[in-house]
Amino acid sequence: MILALDNSKSKKDPWIVMERQYRHAANRFLWELPAGKIDGGEDPLAAAQRELAEETGYKAKKWRRLVEYYASPGFLGESMKVFVAEGLEAGDARPEEDEEIELRLVKMSDVLKMIEKGAIMDGKTLTSVLLYERLRAGRRRK
Amino acid sequence: MILALDNSKSKKDPWIVMERQYRHAANRFLWELPAGKIDGGEDPLAAAQRELAEETGYKAKKWRRLVEYYASPGFLGESMKVFVAEGLEAGDARPEEDEEIELRLVKMSDVLKMIEKGAIMDGKTLTSVLLYERLRAGRRRK
Repeated sequence: MILALDNSKSKKDPWIVMERQYRHAANRFLWELPAGKIDGGEDPLAAAQRELAEETGYKAKKWRRLVEYYASPGFLGESMKVFVAEGLEAGDARPEEDEEIELRLVKMSDVLKMIEKGAIMDGKTLTSVLLYERLRAGRRRK
Repeated sequence: MILALDNSKSKKDPWIVMERQYRHAANRFLWELPAGKIDGGEDPLAAAQRELAEETGYKAKKWRRLVEYYASPGFLGESMKVFVAEGLEAGDARPEEDEEIELRLVKMSDVLKMIEKGAIMDGKTLTSVLLYERLRAGRRRK
């Protein structure tokens, strides 16, 4: 999954590529970061690059790993691999037929406000944004 | 699930009740916050109080909700309900027979360092600790 940052307008408060879609399992609309399944044998970074392009149309020049974690370690063996993507170039999204995804660029400061209000209910988005922000603030402290 | 804080020694840097256990699905040992399944029809807060007592022996005087989120909204309908528990009283744990859990109190500042190094790989622990810390820092800024 991908924390895709457009920092062309502001380095301090970059825009984040967010998706909003109806999740049948949760029975509600959720704001989420782009994510998808890794195809069998696919490299996790290649999968993240493919998913970002398919779901959002964006390509990114710079990729780095943010974190790997287990969403439900009691019974899910597959880990979530989160990448940060920067240097975005827009293109055409090619979502799968069953995916109805609304795309939006949201300022990091606004995503953090949504998180503080409880308006983000997707675990991978909470983990990735909060961790990114903590590591960034830590670098600023130094 | 429960972020159980012992702030009797330090309000600024409370100790957190952590568990370490082998997770077969993930095929490794993980540090996690206490958590468990809600029994059918059980109130989420009652379930959190029961789980904390069963797994760790602790009871807490003060309970409040921190966040509710979906760990894997693509296919898991059940949400995670996270509570903060304070005013801890130690007691005897009664783990289930198949649970081999090592308990440890870890300082919040040390948990945050573990997170920054990538040593915490459990999603619920990442989300809860990072969110708690962000909300607390926000209150300090005001």
